[in-house]
Amino acid sequence: MVNKKCIIRLLRYKNALHRLNSLGFVKVFSDNLADAVGVTASQVRKDFSLFGICGNKRGGYQIEALLGKLNHILGKNEQQKVVIVGGGNIGAALMKYKGFEKEGVKIAACFDIDPAKYNHKEGDIPVLPLEQLRDFVRQNHIKIGVIAVPDIAAQQVLDLMLAAGIKGVLNFAPIRLRAASDCVINNVNLVLELETVIYFIINGLEKSIAEIHEEQKS
Amino acid sequence: MVNKKCIIRLLRYKNALHRLNSLGFVKVFSDNLADAVGVTASQVRKDFSLFGICGNKRGGYQIEALLGKLNHILGKNEQQKVVIVGGGNIGAALMKYKGFEKEGVKIAACFDIDPAKYNHKEGDIPVLPLEQLRDFVRQNHIKIGVIAVPDIAAQQVLDLMLAAGIKGVLNFAPIRLRAASDCVINNVNLVLELETVIYFIINGLEKSIAEIHEEQKS
Repeated sequence: MVNKKCIIRLLRYKNALHRLNSLGFVKVFSDNLADAVGVTASQVRKDFSLFGICGNKRGGYQIEALLGKLNHILGKNEQQKVVIVGGGNIGAALMKYKGFEKEGVKIAACFDIDPAKYNHKEGDIPVLPLEQLRDFVRQNHIKIGVIAVPDIAAQQVLDLMLAAGIKGVLNFAPIRLRAASDCVINNVNLVLELETVIYFIINGLEKSIAEIHEEQKS
Repeated sequence: MVNKKCIIRLLRYKNALHRLNSLGFVKVFSDNLADAVGVTASQVRKDFSLFGICGNKRGGYQIEALLGKLNHILGKNEQQKVVIVGGGNIGAALMKYKGFEKEGVKIAACFDIDPAKYNHKEGDIPVLPLEQLRDFVRQNHIKIGVIAVPDIAAQQVLDLMLAAGIKGVLNFAPIRLRAASDCVINNVNLVLELETVIYFIINGLEKSIAEIHEEQKS
C-alpha cells in the first residue's frame, strides 16, 4: 500500500540520511530518523519493512546500505531530466536552485514566450521559445515538467506538455490542474501554504496546534 | 473538527469563488466548487455546513455572500503582515510575487545577512540587515515569518524569529523544522515535491494514479 505520503516519508528519510552521512555517521536507529522526519519510530520501521528493509535490533541500520536501498526503491540512481515552462520569479528561482543536482534532478531547459528576456540562458540552462517545447521534450525523452506560469496560461501549457509526451507535472500556477488519465499532477500553491499558516495564527493556536501536528505526522 | 486539510479546502473554495466572481458569475453550485477544487460535492456541502453555511437547494450559493462568509471564517478581512528572512532565489521570487496582495497578505520587509546585495530594496519591499529583525517584528506586531535561507541557517533563523515574537512560520529551507509549543510551522520542500512526481513516473503510473488522486481528494 504505497501511497503519496509513504513516498514523501521515504524521500525525507533519504534526505536525513544524506545529512547524517555527510556528518560522518555510519549507523542510524529508527528513533533518529523518526526525530528527523517527525514521525514515530514504529512508522519508520513499518515503512522500511514494506520494502523488505530490516535493521539489526542492536546496531540499527548501516547508513550507506540504507541509502543504496532507498535510492534503488525511489529510482534515484539515474538522473532525471526536467523541463520548466515559465521563466518568471518561480521559474528563475528553480533554475538557480543548487539543491536539484545532488538529488539526481537535472533541469534540461526552460521555455518561455519571451526567451530574449533571459538572454536565452539562465546560468547554464538554456531558455528557449515555447514553440520548441514539443520537439525538445520528444528528442530528449523527457517525462517531467514544471509549470511556473500565471494561472490563466497554466491549462494551455499543460495541454502542450501532455501533447509532447510529459507524464508528470509539478504545477506552481495558483490554479488546480486536473490530471488526464495517464498523467500525474502535483499542485503546489505557495500563497495557499502561507494562508494556511496565517489562518492558524489568527484563529488561536491552542486548539489547532495538536491537529496540525497530527496532520504532519500522518 | 477543523483540521489543516479542511482549511486548505476552504482557502481553495475562496480562490475558485474569486475567479468565478471576476468572470461575472453570481451563483455557484456545490458541484461547480467540487470540480474546481477536486473534491466531491458532498464534501463541499459538509465543509460549509460545519461553519453554518447553507445553500438554497435549487439556487445554489450566492457567490458574494459566500465569499464574505469565507473571508470572515478565514479572518481575511484584515491585512496580514509577513516578514521574509533570506533574500535569495525563493525570497526574491516571493517579494516579486503579485498574488499575495489580493489575498490580504503584505510582505512588510525582508531580512538578509547581506542587504547591500539588494540595494536595500526589492521593488517596494525594504531589505534590512538580519540584526534588525527583532525590533522590526516587535514594533510592527508581526506574527508570521517566511524562512527562505539555506538548510544550515534555518534553525538559527527560526530561533531568532521565535525570540522576536513570530508565531507562525512557512519554511522553505529543505530541512524539517520542529515547532515549539506555541508556534505553527508549515514546511514546504520544493525538491521533495518534484521528487514525488518523479517517483510516480519512474515506477509506472497505472498502479499509483488512483492512489495519488485518492490522496488529493482526502
